[in-house]
Amino acid sequence: MISSRTQVTEMIVAAKVRKGIKWADVAAKVGLSKEWTTAACLGQMTLNKQQAETVGAIFELPDEAVAWLQIVPYKGSLPGAVPTDPLIYRWYEIVSVYGTTIKELIHEEFGDGIMSAIDFSMDIQREADPKGDRVNVVLSGKFLPYKTY
Amino acid sequence: MISSRTQVTEMIVAAKVRKGIKWADVAAKVGLSKEWTTAACLGQMTLNKQQAETVGAIFELPDEAVAWLQIVPYKGSLPGAVPTDPLIYRWYEIVSVYGTTIKELIHEEFGDGIMSAIDFSMDIQREADPKGDRVNVVLSGKFLPYKTY
Amino acid sequence: MISSRTQVTEMIVAAKVRKGIKWADVAAKVGLSKEWTTAACLGQMTLNKQQAETVGAIFELPDEAVAWLQIVPYKGSLPGAVPTDPLIYRWYEIVSVYGTTIKELIHEEFGDGIMSAIDFSMDIQREADPKGDRVNVVLSGKFLPYKTY
Amino acid sequence: MISSRTQVTEMIVAAKVRKGIKWADVAAKVGLSKEWTTAACLGQMTLNKQQAETVGAIFELPDEAVAWLQIVPYKGSLPGAVPTDPLIYRWYEIVSVYGTTIKELIHEEFGDGIMSAIDFSMDIQREADPKGDRVNVVLSGKFLPYKTY
Amino acid sequence: MISSRTQVTEMIVAAKVRKGIKWADVAAKVGLSKEWTTAACLGQMTLNKQQAETVGAIFELPDEAVAWLQIVPYKGSLPGAVPTDPLIYRWYEIVSVYGTTIKELIHEEFGDGIMSAIDFSMDIQREADPKGDRVNVVLSGKFLPYKTY
Amino acid sequence: MISSRTQVTEMIVAAKVRKGIKWADVAAKVGLSKEWTTAACLGQMTLNKQQAETVGAIFELPDEAVAWLQIVPYKGSLPGAVPTDPLIYRWYEIVSVYGTTIKELIHEEFGDGIMSAIDFSMDIQREADPKGDRVNVVLSGKFLPYKTY
Amino acid sequence: MISSRTQVTEMIVAAKVRKGIKWADVAAKVGLSKEWTTAACLGQMTLNKQQAETVGAIFELPDEAVAWLQIVPYKGSLPGAVPTDPLIYRWYEIVSVYGTTIKELIHEEFGDGIMSAIDFSMDIQREADPKGDRVNVVLSGKFLPYKTY
Amino acid sequence: MISSRTQVTEMIVAAKVRKGIKWADVAAKVGLSKEWTTAACLGQMTLNKQQAETVGAIFELPDEAVAWLQIVPYKGSLPGAVPTDPLIYRWYEIVSVYGTTIKELIHEEFGDGIMSAIDFSMDIQREADPKGDRVNVVLSGKFLPYKTY
Amino acid sequence: MISSRTQVTEMIVAAKVRKGIKWADVAAKVGLSKEWTTAACLGQMTLNKQQAETVGAIFELPDEAVAWLQIVPYKGSLPGAVPTDPLIYRWYEIVSVYGTTIKELIHEEFGDGIMSAIDFSMDIQREADPKGDRVNVVLSGKFLPYKTY
Amino acid sequence: MISSRTQVTEMIVAAKVRKGIKWADVAAKVGLSKEWTTAACLGQMTLNKQQAETVGAIFELPDEAVAWLQIVPYKGSLPGAVPTDPLIYRWYEIVSVYGTTIKELIHEEFGDGIMSAIDFSMDIQREADPKGDRVNVVLSGKFLPYKTY
Repeated sequence: MISSRTQVTEMIVAAKVRKGIKWADVAAKVGLSKEWTTAACLGQMTLNKQQAETVGAIFELPDEAVAWLQIVPYKGSLPGAVPTDPLIYRWYEIVSVYGTTIKELIHEEFGDGIMSAIDFSMDIQREADPKGDRVNVVLSGKFLPYKTY
Repeated sequence: MISSRTQVTEMIVAAKVRKGIKWADVAAKVGLSKEWTTAACLGQMTLNKQQAETVGAIFELPDEAVAWLQIVPYKGSLPGAVPTDPLIYRWYEIVSVYGTTIKELIHEEFGDGIMSAIDFSMDIQREADPKGDRVNVVLSGKFLPYKTY
Repeated sequence: MISSRTQVTEMIVAAKVRKGIKWADVAAKVGLSKEWTTAACLGQMTLNKQQAETVGAIFELPDEAVAWLQIVPYKGSLPGAVPTDPLIYRWYEIVSVYGTTIKELIHEEFGDGIMSAIDFSMDIQREADPKGDRVNVVLSGKFLPYKTY
Repeated sequence: MISSRTQVTEMIVAAKVRKGIKWADVAAKVGLSKEWTTAACLGQMTLNKQQAETVGAIFELPDEAVAWLQIVPYKGSLPGAVPTDPLIYRWYEIVSVYGTTIKELIHEEFGDGIMSAIDFSMDIQREADPKGDRVNVVLSGKFLPYKTY
Repeated sequence: MISSRTQVTEMIVAAKVRKGIKWADVAAKVGLSKEWTTAACLGQMTLNKQQAETVGAIFELPDEAVAWLQIVPYKGSLPGAVPTDPLIYRWYEIVSVYGTTIKELIHEEFGDGIMSAIDFSMDIQREADPKGDRVNVVLSGKFLPYKTY
Repeated sequence: MISSRTQVTEMIVAAKVRKGIKWADVAAKVGLSKEWTTAACLGQMTLNKQQAETVGAIFELPDEAVAWLQIVPYKGSLPGAVPTDPLIYRWYEIVSVYGTTIKELIHEEFGDGIMSAIDFSMDIQREADPKGDRVNVVLSGKFLPYKTY
Repeated sequence: MISSRTQVTEMIVAAKVRKGIKWADVAAKVGLSKEWTTAACLGQMTLNKQQAETVGAIFELPDEAVAWLQIVPYKGSLPGAVPTDPLIYRWYEIVSVYGTTIKELIHEEFGDGIMSAIDFSMDIQREADPKGDRVNVVLSGKFLPYKTY
Repeated sequence: MISSRTQVTEMIVAAKVRKGIKWADVAAKVGLSKEWTTAACLGQMTLNKQQAETVGAIFELPDEAVAWLQIVPYKGSLPGAVPTDPLIYRWYEIVSVYGTTIKELIHEEFGDGIMSAIDFSMDIQREADPKGDRVNVVLSGKFLPYKTY
Repeated sequence: MISSRTQVTEMIVAAKVRKGIKWADVAAKVGLSKEWTTAACLGQMTLNKQQAETVGAIFELPDEAVAWLQIVPYKGSLPGAVPTDPLIYRWYEIVSVYGTTIKELIHEEFGDGIMSAIDFSMDIQREADPKGDRVNVVLSGKFLPYKTY
Repeated sequence: MISSRTQVTEMIVAAKVRKGIKWADVAAKVGLSKEWTTAACLGQMTLNKQQAETVGAIFELPDEAVAWLQIVPYKGSLPGAVPTDPLIYRWYEIVSVYGTTIKELIHEEFGDGIMSAIDFSMDIQREADPKGDRVNVVLSGKFLPYKTY
């Protein structure tokens, strides 16, 4: 009996390590970006029937797991409010150090509102650099204004 | 007596509202990006003597405050571990929902290590879009590998 | 020196008690709903120049406070993650008890996505009832779907 | 051995995904609103014998689980004080941003007391809107005044 | 400028110590129970005009404070989620140790619902006992059933 | 292997639901109050040999579980510092709202000290009331004075 | 205006440093143990009139502060749930490491109940030791048994 | 497979209840104090080979568990930062109420430093008392001074 | 099915105790420092194929576990934000007591930036000392300056 | 009135910025290491009379502040359990990632016990490195073994 998406994520992760699968290859088969596809496999996005069956075939999931992939998950991929993993912590640190800066500059440009985390996409790329390669990340989110009523 | 950078940040913020100053104009006078300049004015970065004096002149700060701007601050701009402000929370949510995805994809491309939040820059731009303008943010951080020893 | 919106909220609240002002009357003068107007006076929304001046006149605020009302605030009106006030706690309890129910039913109707808390309005009314009057609250938020990319 | 309602909720959720059941259909068979029925199936409400047997038949639950459905559960459907799921967080954000507003307006209309979360009902509907459909939620709770004694 | 009920509570507490006033005497003048009156003076209940003026006279409060006594307060009298004071902690311990017992027995008698903390009264008395006097407390709260809808 | 009292509590709770047992009947057979007996069955009190065997017979517990009932348990029946269940939360709210009141009134009557939560008893009764029945709870705890030394 | 015992504790501590007073000398003048006297001066115990006047004279406190010393304080001398000070942390560590041991051994000797922290005394002494002097602390608390009812 | 000391502690505790073993008897066989022996059996101390084999024989542990007893454990015997068990809480309360007193008196006698919780012993005894027997606990810890360098 | 690195760490730790393996010997076979090797075996570092096979042979791990050793782990070796184990707590205490000192001195020498915890090595040695041997730890981290942009 | 060491630390920090003093120069005048001296000035160590007067002269402190420098402080230099400042966080991260490694290796070398944070010294140096200078830190703490009793 599978009673949560977390169990499906564990099956996918176990299969990935056991079979040496790459996220980029999964994304190519699903036909979407590697960012969205990885998030979906890690239990954060909802797949349609065809996507779920593709993922199920790649990771050799049982039918019940394929059904779960099509159910909207309870999102949130991290244990605890402050992440302990150094890579993920650096992102939390960016929010902590630059959070008020981001807020000020978006408001200066757009007025009151938010940058959507739903109508949102992300692109992660390697940028070659003689002083050491860089990780370049582009975040794109629709601006949603607060309105009066 | 000024005994913390926080007091200087409050002076700057109060003057900004009172005088209607824009961060983009401060950045132009300082001669650096609006992202770094705003972070510095909000107490997260250290200014050199010339930058501090420029900022001091703009916000009419006393000499003691200008001295504080040149001292490395205790960083972290947000109260509490989970931000309550909706705009900043959306960024925290991105870390929460996409955190493991970001980790997987950077490791798949670079191996074990982190994306630096120190050798780091950020650029925030408006992208016109007929379905509603978007906030585009580019984050660039040097990849730092873990080494064996 | 006013260095945060919180100080302006305190001025408004103190004047409201001292002068016996009603939120409904403030809203009528501002020309918007009592819900939005109250949230704005309590430091959660941004007023335009005319609205700020109206509010400033009602509560006899200094010019600096009127300038602050036009600045996007750091939002979040409650101390602590779990509210202690019994009225507000009941709302937190609704989220705690019905949270997964709300999630299931919105997803069943709309698919994956969220109900916006930004493109959002609220209306609070008394409903007469012989067994004891009821508080009726209508919440209306735009549905924002997650998209693949 | 079933020793908590949580186990029954997991059985229901697993069966729902496996068999592709809709909450609206469960509610129709139970003969009550979809909001109450879903909350009950998710472990927040107590069913009477007939309701429990109906639910047991739909989800093919063992007799012991049907007995548990008739026991008052330990309520609270979310892990952690601050929800991580974006949809549920938006509701928490409404309480955070509008909490003091709701408090002020209910007190202005009714005096000291609370809006009950027990003598309470909820109705969730889709509202068609050319700018994007909206989620409309009506909350209705009896006002309970504090009394002197 | 008085901007919160907390400031009024501090004035009352300071005057009580300075002048050696007893709660029982305050209650007698207000004409209500010592439990309700004390809670009101400590910032948890709302007084009507006459009660507020009586309290104001006893504690020599300024007019602005008397106005605040008639405003519904943000309730919750303790700092932190777990009280450190030994007397108050013993009550928290009762909830911790006997919480599930209270829940079981009320449900066994009344079915699903709660004991109201709003339509509620409390009476604290000394009970003489040769083995050491006892504190007897009677709590009385209306039972509010959950209903189906 | 049973390695904690919690496992025994789960066995009792599972048997209670499966067999439809009432706490009042268990208490009658044990020969003590329903409050103490329920607390004991829920893992908060220590039973003597005879009581444990009676409880073991009622719930059909194995010998090892009967031995555990006679061991002093690690007490505390609730997960988390702030209870999420609405019925138990109301008790926590009483401590939060009335905590300082209770403290003041006990000290006014008895001086410095506490009301014992150990030399303590509780009695829960239904009080018929035409406006809706009430839950009446009597708490009785020995007063323990602080002494100088 | 003095509105809390904390302010009196600060006055005492400030005077102690300024005037170089020793707790042992204060205790000798008060005529009680140094442990109780120090706890009282640090805001944890209630003094009678004579003791308060003695303490007031030693630390040159105003009359209002002397009145506060005779009021039962809100107890708890430490900020935060886990102390950061190394000396006090070692005591917290003793509770953490030996807590279950203390519980087991007291129960093995006395049965179910507690060691009182109210009917309690403490004595701190230096024990000379050639390998380094030791701190010897004797804690004495009345055993209070849980009773059935 | 035993992968943590916690599992060994559970085996010991289960055997103790099942076989009705007393800590004092275990200590007599091990040849050390009941305080150290109990702490060791509860997973807080490291046993040498002979002690581990004695304990293994008493509780009929498998060889793998006897090996684990000789491994330094991850110490800390309590769940959560604030203990819920009333007996252990009283000790936590002593640290909370008397913490600053203990600190002041040790510093007055010894200067800056700590009382060691490592070079430490504890002795728990019953003290007969006509007003009710008392628990007497002697804590002895080496004083460790801070040094300049 | 192995679905997390934690399970592999448990296998390694169980085998280490069962077979009496020393970390220094593992490090010698892997050909790296004992510090890095131990961290890797405890689930904090990523091994290459050859290192993983060596570790797998030493601890008799299945192939799936050897594959997991080559996957970048979710790092963070401690439960809770404040460690309860006395040895590890002392390190946390060093950060708590000396944290601002370390910050001031590194900034005085290097300016604004951090000491890397990624481009980092550690060496732990015994230093013989007639007053009691000492633990000497050398931490070496690259200085990473904040840059303007 | 100075009522806590924190106020003295603020005076020192304010004077340091205002006058441009270096910690190395303070240490030279005090005649001790820069690490100890900085920690003392930041409120973590106790100065003797001569050291306090030297520090008082450097920072132009009033006599009352000089008296406070000779009082053992309540230690702990950081707000919150998890530091937000990036430099200090890296040290917390070292404890988090390497904590169990440090524990294992010290125990493998020394057996059960701790590395003292009291009989402890620290030395921070710049190490020139063509790939970027490094921060080298040597920590030296006496090993304190747990003993049986």
